Amino acid sequence: MKLVTFQDDFVESVGVITDNNEIFNLSNFADIPQTMREILETGEPAMATIRQKLIAFGESNSNIPLETAMLLPPIPNPKLILSIGLNYWKHLEEMDGTPTPKNPAAFIKSRDTLLGSGMPLTKPKQCSDMIDYEGELCVVIGKTCHNVETHQAMDYVAGYTIANDISARDWVAEVFSSKETFEAVHAWERNINGKQLPGFTPCGPVIVLKDEISDPQCLQLETRLNGQTMQSTSTSDMIFSIEEIIAYYSKWYRFNPGDIITTGTPAGVGFGRDPQFFMKTGDIIEVEIEKIGILCNDVL
Amino acid sequence: MKLVTFQDDFVESVGVITDNNEIFNLSNFADIPQTMREILETGEPAMATIRQKLIAFGESNSNIPLETAMLLPPIPNPKLILSIGLNYWKHLEEMDGTPTPKNPAAFIKSRDTLLGSGMPLTKPKQCSDMIDYEGELCVVIGKTCHNVETHQAMDYVAGYTIANDISARDWVAEVFSSKETFEAVHAWERNINGKQLPGFTPCGPVIVLKDEISDPQCLQLETRLNGQTMQSTSTSDMIFSIEEIIAYYSKWYRFNPGDIITTGTPAGVGFGRDPQFFMKTGDIIEVEIEKIGILCNDVL
Repeated sequence: MKLVTFQDDFVESVGVITDNNEIFNLSNFADIPQTMREILETGEPAMATIRQKLIAFGESNSNIPLETAMLLPPIPNPKLILSIGLNYWKHLEEMDGTPTPKNPAAFIKSRDTLLGSGMPLTKPKQCSDMIDYEGELCVVIGKTCHNVETHQAMDYVAGYTIANDISARDWVAEVFSSKETFEAVHAWERNINGKQLPGFTPCGPVIVLKDEISDPQCLQLETRLNGQTMQSTSTSDMIFSIEEIIAYYSKWYRFNPGDIITTGTPAGVGFGRDPQFFMKTGDIIEVEIEKIGILCNDVL
Repeated sequence: MKLVTFQDDFVESVGVITDNNEIFNLSNFADIPQTMREILETGEPAMATIRQKLIAFGESNSNIPLETAMLLPPIPNPKLILSIGLNYWKHLEEMDGTPTPKNPAAFIKSRDTLLGSGMPLTKPKQCSDMIDYEGELCVVIGKTCHNVETHQAMDYVAGYTIANDISARDWVAEVFSSKETFEAVHAWERNINGKQLPGFTPCGPVIVLKDEISDPQCLQLETRLNGQTMQSTSTSDMIFSIEEIIAYYSKWYRFNPGDIITTGTPAGVGFGRDPQFFMKTGDIIEVEIEKIGILCNDVL
């Protein structure tokens, strides 16, 4: 089952995708929570009700084609967006030979970075010259968990979506040129700041529940800029697997339904190319992941 | 005016503090938003209505003494908790002579770290031995802002509260022993992870609107452990002022009403003492800031 958050007549609404790739609006049913986070918090009982409605009423002729709907981020108000970095072997190589991390590495992204698929990505005027894409598989948490073991971690996953961890690269070079501990720490922080601009986390188009994805470590991920393939890798190239990431960070964080974990980007970002290149106004950036869909945004 | 979020008969409610230091419950008024974030989003019109109700009905005999109320974090659901580090001159000295930063340094804290004043702080079993306090002045954002100048920054502040940036120090030594750039970056990240455990951001007791605090850079901050003073400094010891912090981070972040910025901790943390010491079960930790109040939690 695929769930979506969209804007229907200016109202945030949740829908389920039909066999015809249309959105069946769930906001008319009093027995279904009215936001994606509440649906995820309710969990299986909500999913069961949605399945029933889909079977009973899903083919109504007032459905909205997914292609023309105004999509919002699938979870517009997550408590946490945890963004894993440095997690694909070939991406480490392209980023000036970054050494292999002994443990996963991550940072939190501000919720105000979220953007729906189809919404325009505005280049910030204060740092517009080095805007780069990072296509990523996203894990959506379905149940509260804290301090869990690796073999239990997947029990807490509700499903998957796609994110584009947009990055202003103006501060990346500082990381590689820094010579002592706190210089490196400050440079890294400024590098992460370059990911916190408004709209810098396009996310969607839908959440695919995990029963439709038997192996999330074997999905083809492709990022296209104006139709040209820039990243094309299987999620099997990840250094730390999804279950390892959840277990590792759950030692500190408590994850809650609706939390999003982005799992790192593969090789092929603009910063890592020779010559480097960055996105410009008028570009169309797409991230496609097998079995999930296409996250598409144009650059303003 | 001082505003508070508290639990009244199991319901999250917003109140205003009367001259008698009691909570006047605002949840019975249909013309006042029902959560602190919505009140801050509505801004001055909501404040004006609250002032009117306080004058007209504030001395009702069903008020709840602030001391006995079950307080929640003043903003239970901020979009962003941005936590400034390394921002008091004397704290840098005690942390192994950390060099003076050229720019502010910060990290985001997970929303699930929030804890109300009076709520117990549970030591996590997986890292219970090096739990430290960090008393901090908190800025509460009142208006959306992005890419603003220093001289404009204070226009976007609604008021102030107190936070305790609780930290499991198990990973701090790694920061100082790391020898190359990415080792330092990974060590710093693990240091920050030690601040993300559930309940590790006690916050409150109240929000004081900014008209009651003429100079936030001249407030006495005192942290007491079991009644003994551990930190005692004026906020004038800050390296980067509140307006500098807001302007600097607004180049990347978009701040929204209800966002919280913690402004760093002064000297006197347990990790920086000789001998070092950490909090244990049964301890009572208080952070008092002049004109705001006392944030108090016991350690379980």
